[in-house]
Amino acid sequence: MADLGIAIERMEQLKESIDIGYLCICAAFVLLMQVGFAFLEGGCLRYKDMQSIMLKIFMNTCVTIVIWWLVGYAIAFGNDSKEFVGSSVYIGFDMKNSKHLAEFAFQTAVASAATSIVSGGAAGRMTYIGYFILSVVFSSVIYPFCAHWGFGNGWLMKLGYHDYAGSGTIHASAGMGALMTTMLLKPRNQRFNPKYSEHFEPNNPIYITLACLSLWVCWCFFNGGSSLGIANGASVFMSRAIMNTFIAGASGALTVFFIFYLMNIDQGNKYSLVMICNGNLAGLVAITGPCDNVDAWAAFVIGILGGMMMVFANRVLFNLQIDDPVDAISIHFACGMLGANLVSWFDMDTGIVYGKGGYQFAVQMLGSFIYIGWSAIIHLITLLFIEKIGYLRVSTEEEHEGLDPATMGCCAYEMVELQQ
Amino acid sequence: MADLGIAIERMEQLKESIDIGYLCICAAFVLLMQVGFAFLEGGCLRYKDMQSIMLKIFMNTCVTIVIWWLVGYAIAFGNDSKEFVGSSVYIGFDMKNSKHLAEFAFQTAVASAATSIVSGGAAGRMTYIGYFILSVVFSSVIYPFCAHWGFGNGWLMKLGYHDYAGSGTIHASAGMGALMTTMLLKPRNQRFNPKYSEHFEPNNPIYITLACLSLWVCWCFFNGGSSLGIANGASVFMSRAIMNTFIAGASGALTVFFIFYLMNIDQGNKYSLVMICNGNLAGLVAITGPCDNVDAWAAFVIGILGGMMMVFANRVLFNLQIDDPVDAISIHFACGMLGANLVSWFDMDTGIVYGKGGYQFAVQMLGSFIYIGWSAIIHLITLLFIEKIGYLRVSTEEEHEGLDPATMGCCAYEMVELQQ
Amino acid sequence: MADLGIAIERMEQLKESIDIGYLCICAAFVLLMQVGFAFLEGGCLRYKDMQSIMLKIFMNTCVTIVIWWLVGYAIAFGNDSKEFVGSSVYIGFDMKNSKHLAEFAFQTAVASAATSIVSGGAAGRMTYIGYFILSVVFSSVIYPFCAHWGFGNGWLMKLGYHDYAGSGTIHASAGMGALMTTMLLKPRNQRFNPKYSEHFEPNNPIYITLACLSLWVCWCFFNGGSSLGIANGASVFMSRAIMNTFIAGASGALTVFFIFYLMNIDQGNKYSLVMICNGNLAGLVAITGPCDNVDAWAAFVIGILGGMMMVFANRVLFNLQIDDPVDAISIHFACGMLGANLVSWFDMDTGIVYGKGGYQFAVQMLGSFIYIGWSAIIHLITLLFIEKIGYLRVSTEEEHEGLDPATMGCCAYEMVELQQ
Repeated sequence: MADLGIAIERMEQLKESIDIGYLCICAAFVLLMQVGFAFLEGGCLRYKDMQSIMLKIFMNTCVTIVIWWLVGYAIAFGNDSKEFVGSSVYIGFDMKNSKHLAEFAFQTAVASAATSIVSGGAAGRMTYIGYFILSVVFSSVIYPFCAHWGFGNGWLMKLGYHDYAGSGTIHASAGMGALMTTMLLKPRNQRFNPKYSEHFEPNNPIYITLACLSLWVCWCFFNGGSSLGIANGASVFMSRAIMNTFIAGASGALTVFFIFYLMNIDQGNKYSLVMICNGNLAGLVAITGPCDNVDAWAAFVIGILGGMMMVFANRVLFNLQIDDPVDAISIHFACGMLGANLVSWFDMDTGIVYGKGGYQFAVQMLGSFIYIGWSAIIHLITLLFIEKIGYLRVSTEEEHEGLDPATMGCCAYEMVELQQ
Repeated sequence: MADLGIAIERMEQLKESIDIGYLCICAAFVLLMQVGFAFLEGGCLRYKDMQSIMLKIFMNTCVTIVIWWLVGYAIAFGNDSKEFVGSSVYIGFDMKNSKHLAEFAFQTAVASAATSIVSGGAAGRMTYIGYFILSVVFSSVIYPFCAHWGFGNGWLMKLGYHDYAGSGTIHASAGMGALMTTMLLKPRNQRFNPKYSEHFEPNNPIYITLACLSLWVCWCFFNGGSSLGIANGASVFMSRAIMNTFIAGASGALTVFFIFYLMNIDQGNKYSLVMICNGNLAGLVAITGPCDNVDAWAAFVIGILGGMMMVFANRVLFNLQIDDPVDAISIHFACGMLGANLVSWFDMDTGIVYGKGGYQFAVQMLGSFIYIGWSAIIHLITLLFIEKIGYLRVSTEEEHEGLDPATMGCCAYEMVELQQ
Repeated sequence: MADLGIAIERMEQLKESIDIGYLCICAAFVLLMQVGFAFLEGGCLRYKDMQSIMLKIFMNTCVTIVIWWLVGYAIAFGNDSKEFVGSSVYIGFDMKNSKHLAEFAFQTAVASAATSIVSGGAAGRMTYIGYFILSVVFSSVIYPFCAHWGFGNGWLMKLGYHDYAGSGTIHASAGMGALMTTMLLKPRNQRFNPKYSEHFEPNNPIYITLACLSLWVCWCFFNGGSSLGIANGASVFMSRAIMNTFIAGASGALTVFFIFYLMNIDQGNKYSLVMICNGNLAGLVAITGPCDNVDAWAAFVIGILGGMMMVFANRVLFNLQIDDPVDAISIHFACGMLGANLVSWFDMDTGIVYGKGGYQFAVQMLGSFIYIGWSAIIHLITLLFIEKIGYLRVSTEEEHEGLDPATMGCCAYEMVELQQ
């Protein structure tokens, strides 16, 4: 029976190869989310600040990749048995293990996406150097610990915290970073002066649409890829994740579209391309945590709740005069918290609606608050440090002129030639 | 030999996992076609209507996903044995079967693409509410039956109708929807007044290029994914589909590019970026049906024929003063009919050029006319209903002002800041 | 044991199916690079020439696909045993072999990318017909021989030349094409007149960002796909390729970003979105050759060296008054040569830094110079022929007016409607 043994061994190797191939594909498309973030945030800002945010996003992507190679991946996934921090595969880790390489690529792309979420809070008024420092801290300290605790077999995971692709672990913690950043930076000048309100409308809804539809597609790999493979039964989670990602994205989009319509029904301008995009993203953030183990009807409901939460958070922030230029807080923070906690309601195995006990509820609550607390504290320390060394906010002149002309000498797509 | 049995069983499970993974990847990239449709149609319209069509496309995508979860998928693929309509997996269907989940995602993405084709006819003058109703009807009635008959083991499929990824089942039927919609809506004001002809030129050829190249890539998954897997010998159809998708797209593009060049050779403006894009799409629509089982030379010829058909249909529509704002009819309807019928000429097993009989020819003719007849009738009823309730066409003032400023209060990418 | 034999045979078939599926996915995303090239080059040129380069890129993609079906693939990969040129699978090749079909799609997409690199040299002043001829020659003669020698088991490969995804075979040879083209075309009018220097700044950094981030993602499939599969141990090269593609892209981007910052530190405009993009591409080109068999730290270093090389080459070209409108030469030619030669330094099995001998160094040097010599000679002959028949350069009037208005009658995205 030696031959059979060899055949089985080969099949196991084949399975591993398939998982690696699948993970590499997912890694590439999670990296593609950076196009989405760049165009989403670029489209939401003022025209004169568009390049500055894209530069920040490009920079934080590169920073995260380098930092994750140096320490981030090791902290997060370095050793399966430590509860608080990984302890192996720091710089120069073992290049022989293909599975590790593919997981590195996938998790690094995920970490880059998390870093880009924070950039929303820095939009339109933070210095590049200040933001560079923040990105280094976020990708080397803040997020890797979150990832270890919730994904890397750390203490939250061992307690039973379940957050499949990271509504809490990623979106709530990064969204809290955007909130701390925007609060310490203070609003953009004249942001809440009604006379100038239309200056702060998204400058390019077309880019937001491009971004949002692209992100939706990439989200399928973000959620689906969290199975880390397809062989050995993982395909069931992957296929469920993708179906739920479709449904919650759709129900979130339609919800916010109709809420906006009803809120503005007396006015001429009751339709909004931006709102259907934001609703879509809200639904996607909310389904990220529970996507692997909820039924399709639950995904439909979660999308609706995500959309409602996003509109509600957006109103609250506006009334509190917190300037959230790209809706990062109302989408990622608010819907991330929602998604992390909805796991305990809708999970087919442990959810309250299926009559299961409150343990999961308590753990999800604990985990999500740990994440936002941890993120808030380290962000606060970092931002105060950046303020102290004088790199927090650009000058009023630069902001008024626009970050693009002030720091790059040109605007995004002036049609200079035509005006010759 | 028990161990061998287990090993074989595991291999079968692995095969299923691979098919699921492949289908999920295809599903995501067929969803990405919505970026293509949004930018193709947005680029073809007037600048002042650009957001309105993108909103329609985003909305119909979400509507289709929800409707397919509720009834569409069940009608189309619910039961393999019924000839006219599927009878199982309606709302809340069995979530245990991963294959079903992955197929749901793929087929729903395909259905969303079909719905977006219809939007071409609604461009620039239909109300949102009217279009919403039309999308609900298309995705719950019109297309699911088409899909059941031709893809879901329905009566046409049993007769031998062969339309691999749906030149007739999808493109001709949805293209007929665009034709009915545009005819009932009537042309945009001043569309055929030569004085204003340049106002109706595509406003953004760059977006059309982005759209077309992206669609070409997604089409590889649209055609390739129709194998519903790669294990068990399906990879032969998949690889042939992708090669033919490359070739027919290229030959279609070059054909239309040169036809346009020759038609305008006496003028200065004899080159056209838009025409090479339209030719590419024409070739892709024409190869969609026969892509799995024709030789590469046949794909080359089919692309050329598709390009020629597109130019011809475009001329006919213009002379009949039918306003086809985004060339949806000349691309999807005309080339879809062509592709469905070219199967009977070029199919390696049943094609006339290989000396096989006329049965396939008759069946393809029957199927394609059934599709456009069915689509025409239900579209007509629905559109007359929408007209009756007063939601067919926007007011002349709104149309003149532009749908974007009239309904959303802003244009797509005005550079307000620069003009301060 | 007959059953076991059947099971093993089925597993081998499954492996082949997996490789085919993987290759088809890679093929589609290498085709997507055309979006990247179109927007990269369109964004780098003047606004008034933007469509013309996109048309050239679309055209050369279609030309390459058709030519590769006719002769290119046969020359390059037609027969594994010939040293100088492939001898089988010319027109109408055997359609029964799925592996061939998938490899055809992948290699054709790669060849299309190579052709598009040359377009950089033709930007803004070459006639369409001249460029059409050049594309035909490049895709039927120049590149197929390069591919056969280095990838298709030709003489360089047999000597031990190692260039995994083609820093030399593709980037250096195509970059040399861009150099020859731009030198024979001579600079655009007023290009080196300091008075007009700002007219030659990239017109749309946003498009460059879109292009660069998309190319980075596609590069994962370009490099990863060069394993031609994932089964049978290829996954180790694939996963290493993707990790190194991430790291070198990041380190290249950060390097050029900081060099630009330091070079302009006394000025207001010391940040540049375009420079971080160019650095990213430089790192990617440099890692293309060695990506399969270098350690992560080496990829980090290679990215930095690529970035530095790009800045250096850019300065040299400017001082020599060679007009490289889209930085094709400093990115593809210079960093391609660098990458091909860095293999001999950093390769884990044969590299000088690991104390291995100089044989690999000599072979890489030989191969890379053969490639650029071959490319230079055939390009020169072709371009002189094109000049002789009068299709090299557009008229001064057309250039001054802009290629778009002169040849297509319109500009890319004028907002005609608003100005009514």
